[in-house]
Amino acid sequence: MPGKKFQQLYDGEKKKIDKILSRSLQFREPVSLYNPAYYIIKNGGKRLRPVMVLFSCKSVGGRYNSAYNAAAAVELLHNFTLIHDDIMDNAEKRRGLPTLHVKYDLNTAVLAGDGMLAVAYEYLLKDCKNKKNIVISEFTKALIEICEGQALDKKFEVERNVTIADYLRMIQKKTASMLEMCCKTGGILGGGTEKEIKALASFGKNIGIAFQIHDDLLDIKGYEEFGKTTGGDLMEGKKTFLFLRALNKTRGKDKADLERMIENKGIKRTEVNYFIDLYKRNGIIEDAEAEILNYTKKAVKAVDTLKNENDKEVFRWLAGTLIKRNK
Amino acid sequence: MPGKKFQQLYDGEKKKIDKILSRSLQFREPVSLYNPAYYIIKNGGKRLRPVMVLFSCKSVGGRYNSAYNAAAAVELLHNFTLIHDDIMDNAEKRRGLPTLHVKYDLNTAVLAGDGMLAVAYEYLLKDCKNKKNIVISEFTKALIEICEGQALDKKFEVERNVTIADYLRMIQKKTASMLEMCCKTGGILGGGTEKEIKALASFGKNIGIAFQIHDDLLDIKGYEEFGKTTGGDLMEGKKTFLFLRALNKTRGKDKADLERMIENKGIKRTEVNYFIDLYKRNGIIEDAEAEILNYTKKAVKAVDTLKNENDKEVFRWLAGTLIKRNK
Repeated sequence: MPGKKFQQLYDGEKKKIDKILSRSLQFREPVSLYNPAYYIIKNGGKRLRPVMVLFSCKSVGGRYNSAYNAAAAVELLHNFTLIHDDIMDNAEKRRGLPTLHVKYDLNTAVLAGDGMLAVAYEYLLKDCKNKKNIVISEFTKALIEICEGQALDKKFEVERNVTIADYLRMIQKKTASMLEMCCKTGGILGGGTEKEIKALASFGKNIGIAFQIHDDLLDIKGYEEFGKTTGGDLMEGKKTFLFLRALNKTRGKDKADLERMIENKGIKRTEVNYFIDLYKRNGIIEDAEAEILNYTKKAVKAVDTLKNENDKEVFRWLAGTLIKRNK
Repeated sequence: MPGKKFQQLYDGEKKKIDKILSRSLQFREPVSLYNPAYYIIKNGGKRLRPVMVLFSCKSVGGRYNSAYNAAAAVELLHNFTLIHDDIMDNAEKRRGLPTLHVKYDLNTAVLAGDGMLAVAYEYLLKDCKNKKNIVISEFTKALIEICEGQALDKKFEVERNVTIADYLRMIQKKTASMLEMCCKTGGILGGGTEKEIKALASFGKNIGIAFQIHDDLLDIKGYEEFGKTTGGDLMEGKKTFLFLRALNKTRGKDKADLERMIENKGIKRTEVNYFIDLYKRNGIIEDAEAEILNYTKKAVKAVDTLKNENDKEVFRWLAGTLIKRNK
């Protein structure tokens, strides 16, 4: 099946998920709780996490129908994290529109996030009628990891001595654990064997790490039309993969400049191009790309053990689109 | 068994719950997430909700041992709501100590609340190994009701035409649904029959409503030594049972004064005594006390169907202490 067919499959399932997501929040009372939550959900998104649930379910011989509610649940969980993270990051825009605490206010955003998480569990439970406690357990484990990852992320912002190993541990919790859980959930709901579920989990985890490093890279490559500000991470003084790699690799003035960024907790907008040049002349972009490829290969290798060739192809295609994406 | 024995039983179980609660958060990493959460948990509290889980479990023939983790879970859930509610209410003190967002900061409090909720599910799952999905389902339902109740509470603060019926609907969601869930959870984990669980649920719900109206009353009766400010609800312009009852019952200047409180979204500290007098001369205190007694009687009547006389006595004693408490 060529890429175009996979894209059609993805888009078709995305539409179905969008419908369930709307239904989960729209027209629900009190509107003061659910309308703000719905505002975030209807602002869109790739719906990558729910699609990973569905593809994983299918790949072990399950039917999409047994995992649609769980698919919606992981997207609700994801959006809960976006709402609360945006508060903590003082972010003003999300997907090109005002963040929830800017559009409404802080109280509304805190509570809408909480409500969204509650509805996530509600939807997860719909697909867990028979002895599927393990799904709720994996979901809860991922939620805990996400909170821990976010705590580490905020802590690293004010710490001087963050290593690449620290960074990898942080993104594994904050980003990769959710993608790992999505693949596991699909595998369990589809009735997969232990071996199959393990392979899917490894795909999710590794693609999650690749995904986050790619996200760091997008901040430098800059695609302003998608609502991303080039160099935003640099301005905020975030200790991304690129930054930490540069800090490790450089000496002299370059290293001093990077250390200055830590000291000042970020740089000015006018300095962004200078730092991008610094990354470029030190080969940091290539290093990041190599790391992304490395984790993507691990992910793809993990699903090589799946039975059906077409399913392997789907995951390979998905991995490919993720590292080629520009938003 | 006399009251003193029940109190000893309560205190004994409270100690065990305190230990599990400490263990659930203390020494866990990252400390930047769990230490703030632990700060709230170790500040104390009556542990009423977990004890209700245990007493309910026992009353249907179950063992405390099968419900300790679930008992800890409901207290973690309760404390999650306290942390986020305190943010939304701009509260500065809780149990006589600085609230979490005051002691640390907003970001820490949002995330510690989220983490606490996640750990609540983790502990609940420990007691739900065998086909106990219904427990997780009831827990999630209560979480949704709590969020909805909080949304209504915040909404009522800025609305003019709140009725007593609206108020009762709100506190049923915000307060009573959790106590109802506690009793149900204990009943289910203890292996109760459908009839028994229904009776326990009715006890929890009705005692929850009585509990909240009593809480409104405590604000007027004032016991400053317990860290409560007399008339705090009046100063914040909260539409409590007492306020709404007074608004219904009064005419002329009294009614105009109450309407002025709505208009001004609260009163000054110097006006508190005047409003307490207003309540007193209109018999509002007695009305509240009658309503509390009414719901308490409903609660006690519900558990009359339980088999064991001693269990009935425990619930009667618990109900009695709740409406006699001064903090």
